[in-house]
Amino acid sequence: MKKSALSIIPLGGLGEIGKNMTAIKYQDQILVIDCGLAFPEEDMMGIDLVLPDYAYLVENREKLLAVVLTHGHEDHIGGLPYFLRQINVPIYGSRLALGLVERKLKEHGMDRQAALNSVNPRDIIEIGSFKVEFIRVSHSIPDAMALAIHTPVGTLVHTGDFKIDHTPIDGDVLDLHRFASLGEQGVLVLLSDSTNVEKEGYTFSERLVGNSFDEYFREASDRIIIATFASNIHRLQQAIITAHKYGRQVAVAGRSMVNVITVASELGYLNIPEGTLISLDEVDKLPSNKVLVLTTGSQGEPMSALTRMAYGEHRQFGVLPGDTVIISAMPIPGNEKTVSRIINQLFKLGANVIYEGDSEVHVSGHPSREELKLMLNLIRPQYFIPVHGEYRMLMKHAQLAQELGIPQENIFVGEIGQVFELTKEKGRISGRVPAGRVLVDGLGVGDVGNIVLRDRREMAQEGILIVVITLDKETHQVLAGPDIISRGFIYVRESEALIEETKVKVTSALQRCTHQGKCGWTYIKAAIKSELSKFLFERTRRRPMILPIIMEIEKK
Amino acid sequence: MKKSALSIIPLGGLGEIGKNMTAIKYQDQILVIDCGLAFPEEDMMGIDLVLPDYAYLVENREKLLAVVLTHGHEDHIGGLPYFLRQINVPIYGSRLALGLVERKLKEHGMDRQAALNSVNPRDIIEIGSFKVEFIRVSHSIPDAMALAIHTPVGTLVHTGDFKIDHTPIDGDVLDLHRFASLGEQGVLVLLSDSTNVEKEGYTFSERLVGNSFDEYFREASDRIIIATFASNIHRLQQAIITAHKYGRQVAVAGRSMVNVITVASELGYLNIPEGTLISLDEVDKLPSNKVLVLTTGSQGEPMSALTRMAYGEHRQFGVLPGDTVIISAMPIPGNEKTVSRIINQLFKLGANVIYEGDSEVHVSGHPSREELKLMLNLIRPQYFIPVHGEYRMLMKHAQLAQELGIPQENIFVGEIGQVFELTKEKGRISGRVPAGRVLVDGLGVGDVGNIVLRDRREMAQEGILIVVITLDKETHQVLAGPDIISRGFIYVRESEALIEETKVKVTSALQRCTHQGKCGWTYIKAAIKSELSKFLFERTRRRPMILPIIMEIEKK
Repeated sequence: MKKSALSIIPLGGLGEIGKNMTAIKYQDQILVIDCGLAFPEEDMMGIDLVLPDYAYLVENREKLLAVVLTHGHEDHIGGLPYFLRQINVPIYGSRLALGLVERKLKEHGMDRQAALNSVNPRDIIEIGSFKVEFIRVSHSIPDAMALAIHTPVGTLVHTGDFKIDHTPIDGDVLDLHRFASLGEQGVLVLLSDSTNVEKEGYTFSERLVGNSFDEYFREASDRIIIATFASNIHRLQQAIITAHKYGRQVAVAGRSMVNVITVASELGYLNIPEGTLISLDEVDKLPSNKVLVLTTGSQGEPMSALTRMAYGEHRQFGVLPGDTVIISAMPIPGNEKTVSRIINQLFKLGANVIYEGDSEVHVSGHPSREELKLMLNLIRPQYFIPVHGEYRMLMKHAQLAQELGIPQENIFVGEIGQVFELTKEKGRISGRVPAGRVLVDGLGVGDVGNIVLRDRREMAQEGILIVVITLDKETHQVLAGPDIISRGFIYVRESEALIEETKVKVTSALQRCTHQGKCGWTYIKAAIKSELSKFLFERTRRRPMILPIIMEIEKK
Repeated sequence: MKKSALSIIPLGGLGEIGKNMTAIKYQDQILVIDCGLAFPEEDMMGIDLVLPDYAYLVENREKLLAVVLTHGHEDHIGGLPYFLRQINVPIYGSRLALGLVERKLKEHGMDRQAALNSVNPRDIIEIGSFKVEFIRVSHSIPDAMALAIHTPVGTLVHTGDFKIDHTPIDGDVLDLHRFASLGEQGVLVLLSDSTNVEKEGYTFSERLVGNSFDEYFREASDRIIIATFASNIHRLQQAIITAHKYGRQVAVAGRSMVNVITVASELGYLNIPEGTLISLDEVDKLPSNKVLVLTTGSQGEPMSALTRMAYGEHRQFGVLPGDTVIISAMPIPGNEKTVSRIINQLFKLGANVIYEGDSEVHVSGHPSREELKLMLNLIRPQYFIPVHGEYRMLMKHAQLAQELGIPQENIFVGEIGQVFELTKEKGRISGRVPAGRVLVDGLGVGDVGNIVLRDRREMAQEGILIVVITLDKETHQVLAGPDIISRGFIYVRESEALIEETKVKVTSALQRCTHQGKCGWTYIKAAIKSELSKFLFERTRRRPMILPIIMEIEKK
């Protein structure tokens, strides 16, 4: 029985939004779906990005056949430069996804190490015992694909990120027929996108955004600036077409926007009318009603072009009174305040800012409840695993599936690292593999752990107070110090009295140790710490990190 | 002309949500409206709360006549314990607002220092040249009042925080007739709440929440937990009444909830049926369908009762599968992630969590656009100053007023510290007084400034690396060290090689200094800093704060 089971092992994307990665195992063959990254939570101080912990795959590297990609978003491909450093394995994905992967690997100096195999919708690739079929879906990046993985146990359908856009910009509607036919033939298990399960109804078509652009372009008499996600190429296309219609030339700001536009144009995903693109430097030479600027920064990223524009710190471009700034995005949870601050700043510069709310300048790339129902009813899977969502979203998606008739015992709301073992007869959680998060900080992958983060948080809250003393190694007599250095606690120059008192406390703690004959470093340090933390809390109601440093010298 | 002008000087609440405080000046008399606090932004690390900078009032204390309060929310009364320490001045406000102030002063050990004068709606108090009239409004705390301040120059109307609730819980509708009559008599200037100017239509009545409570109570077969703002006494009242109706007893969790319920019951604002209240400890003795728990923590505050319940850390109460948890609040911008995490945790415990979206368990306390229009058209002021909002809200409120016919030159979108000088003939910004924010951290008021915050942020991002050396004062020979201590940078035990190399770098920097005959501390420290920051960035791509400490001793 164990031999013939199919195991599904999510390593990321369950109980979280981001770092999507799922392993599919049959006998001694493993296939991986996506290899994404996540952006740090606000308590992960100083962390640049977060990877899934894929130790399980590294350990089983000889079983690993390939990584198949659903689409080119960071939370699905961003982990590859790190993953491929440890395991060289072929990658399958759309031309666009692979184009973005290639650029990424180049940036990491890993150009062309991996075998990148491009696939098209309805392609079927045989990888070991797996027949992997790619199925067109709509999403906020072109060429997103769901997967139907035909295995000896049955067919697994993974939707990837999707929405059902009946009027997509490229004309290619989600492959309803293929999903219908799979459902008709019988599907063992469905893994489906849970991001928007809390939203009733249908997600609007991307075309709505184009219509709104048109209205704002028609009204605007000065320059227009649109901030959106660089990877939303259909939206960029709509903005460029609209600019062209209204006789505006287009300048691009922000590194990732420039990069994506380059890759997408080269690969033919973006159609830019001849002579439309100009450089940011040329904007000032044109009349203000002849300009569109496409920029990054729709999430208020601190170093992004839009942020620098809002604070008047962009070298090449300044927002002027009368400019229309369209923020064509919703703040990702956690970014609301930053985005809000940027909007305020832009208003202060005299811009007319169009943002979320009734402005219809953004639509989601994920399916709302009616689309989720349609997918569930098309596929009619034996087992259902909601993926791509925080715990509450997985729960709501599970409830939805139950309402549509999937028995509760066939629905698995799981956690990363859990092994879902499925046969035609039975589905169960059969075990657990290591899973979690690996923090990347600069060049360090995984070297910032809980202790380092805890220290950062502690120092961030109340700062640090350092006590340095030099002692005679023999007599334990104080040769220099105590010196007190503080950072982030109080401004020492304005708190001389407190510092002097602190020194007295240190000296008395030291004396107490010496009198008790307890001259070990550990003991002295603990004594100083406890004395000072009590004293400083009483005097300031703050608890800085206290760091006693003792140097010993032989005074001969 | 100058003598007869009325000056309005906002010291908080413009360009921000929070720390509301406005000074009204006529000749040498100053009246202050509200004295609030704000909660720290996420980049104000370790800060407990934020006060308006009221240095201008301290400087002009002999002119200060009184503080009048619009209502008892923290962002309108929270600054008083600090303000009253510097200036003793009579306070006017509703019984509830004063009850909350009194409790606050008691907590600060300042009980009964201030003269607290309670007023009722339609009361008119003469304070110097000002006749201050209190006018009933609806808001998310009982007894909120707008102010009509009659001055020799004309009448100023300050709405305070308000909404127009036609079916308020206490039956007392906003005093439409008084606003109408003021408008009829002529108002010089209106200051009006801009919080919800981005919301179309009308804000729903508080009664809607009661109806939703009733539905959820009818359906729930296990315990119900409602998290809401402690000060929303009408909502607590509705929860308690509904509990009573369905035979549930009520336990209260969270210090501020206990406090407010105590004050509100004593003052008669809260009607709790005999025998309804039980202590949290008694909950376990009752059948699960006989319990309602009212708790703090609707904003996901880390130390709140709900947060502790969600993480299973509450000493007296644990959430069980089947419990219904109603989060009767919207996350305040910046709190979305934290609240979302709590909801996920509660789902993991098996609770049925009801939260924002379509659940109708929360309504705002602020007016939407239609209510703002009504207020503007009732008052028909000569001048208009939108208040209580971020910059973009003030701008939108100004646009709204213009659409209703107030001339642009009579509308002032201002900043804190600006002096708006008004006469019947002319309104202008005549100058500026000091204004800004004062940070409170523990007992320190204003001692955490930009340098300390910058250090906290720097250490939070990449940690700190401390280098200690003891030198011979005469020969500058190294007697001990270099020792390297690091916190929040790397975990030293796992990075011994890097630490050893760092020591070598320090020694070579030192030697270079000695060879060049540059043995001053400042020079040596700078040399170590620059050497190490370069070296560590190359090796780790991180920039920890580098702190060289040099001790000197005379070795004789």
